[in-house]
Amino acid sequence: MKYGIVAFPSKKVQDFANSYRKRYDPHYALITPHMTIKGVFEADENEIKIIADKVASITGKHKPFTLKTTKVSSFAPVTNAIYFNVDHTDEITALREALHTIEYNDEENYAFVPHITIAQKLKSSEHDDIYPQLKMIGAEFEEEIDRLHLLYQLDDGSWTVYETFRLSGDV
Amino acid sequence: MKYGIVAFPSKKVQDFANSYRKRYDPHYALITPHMTIKGVFEADENEIKIIADKVASITGKHKPFTLKTTKVSSFAPVTNAIYFNVDHTDEITALREALHTIEYNDEENYAFVPHITIAQKLKSSEHDDIYPQLKMIGAEFEEEIDRLHLLYQLDDGSWTVYETFRLSGDV
Repeated sequence: MKYGIVAFPSKKVQDFANSYRKRYDPHYALITPHMTIKGVFEADENEIKIIADKVASITGKHKPFTLKTTKVSSFAPVTNAIYFNVDHTDEITALREALHTIEYNDEENYAFVPHITIAQKLKSSEHDDIYPQLKMIGAEFEEEIDRLHLLYQLDDGSWTVYETFRLSGDV
Repeated sequence: MKYGIVAFPSKKVQDFANSYRKRYDPHYALITPHMTIKGVFEADENEIKIIADKVASITGKHKPFTLKTTKVSSFAPVTNAIYFNVDHTDEITALREALHTIEYNDEENYAFVPHITIAQKLKSSEHDDIYPQLKMIGAEFEEEIDRLHLLYQLDDGSWTVYETFRLSGDV
């Protein structure tokens, strides 16, 4: 079974992201707008409680963090995905590194860039067409994230929340 | 802002429900398969923490319950919705009544029938065509639900999980 750990921004940010995702993100219907903290990893269905306990012990040590987006960026030419760029703070790094100690056949093998995807799997021509427009509109938000969510994926690709975890620590 | 409280069944039940929802439920992309415990209610965005505290105090008193589905039923002719019928146990009644004390301009004004919707907003002809087939296939599942989820709705109609609550009590 596939799992992931994400933060959902506020309704305001989600609604704004969805106004683009509706048109430009084929994952639009599979999950609401989010910032991935720990990307897709595989684990047995029975391991979910163990994983949840590990996540709980980590979130119990870390404090809420600021999610600040300042601009629209793109992963092109690596991949034609456009996103709200999230400031990479020490808090986010610390949280991600702590969660990374949960080893479950992680599929991630790229540098971590905190972001909220608003467009992906675009043709290059489409990407090059819309990116300047989205960049110009921008995305300036700042809010506190006080919880993470552990999700698992259904057979149709959609994601269900298994549990939420409050960031209730001091680190 | 609109809120709801639901239970998500296991991945197995969700995948089975989605195999029908994909074709017959226009809400398919808005939320994963679920059993609503407290239907849509309105509350201000700032009230969410108060509501979450109330839900937490209730789920802290109630124990996990058995979600048992035995058959496929329909709300027709009231509304052309088809669902997995969930056995209405005393535990579910108690939990629902406790949650009902959270008063927030509840839109519900019908008798509570615990269920997992698999088809809705069907034309009568379509309903009458597929209902006998779905009924014949049936839906026999039995599992323990040990948590509830508080959700809120985005502008596009999709639902985001705000928080999960373990059923950790004895009632």
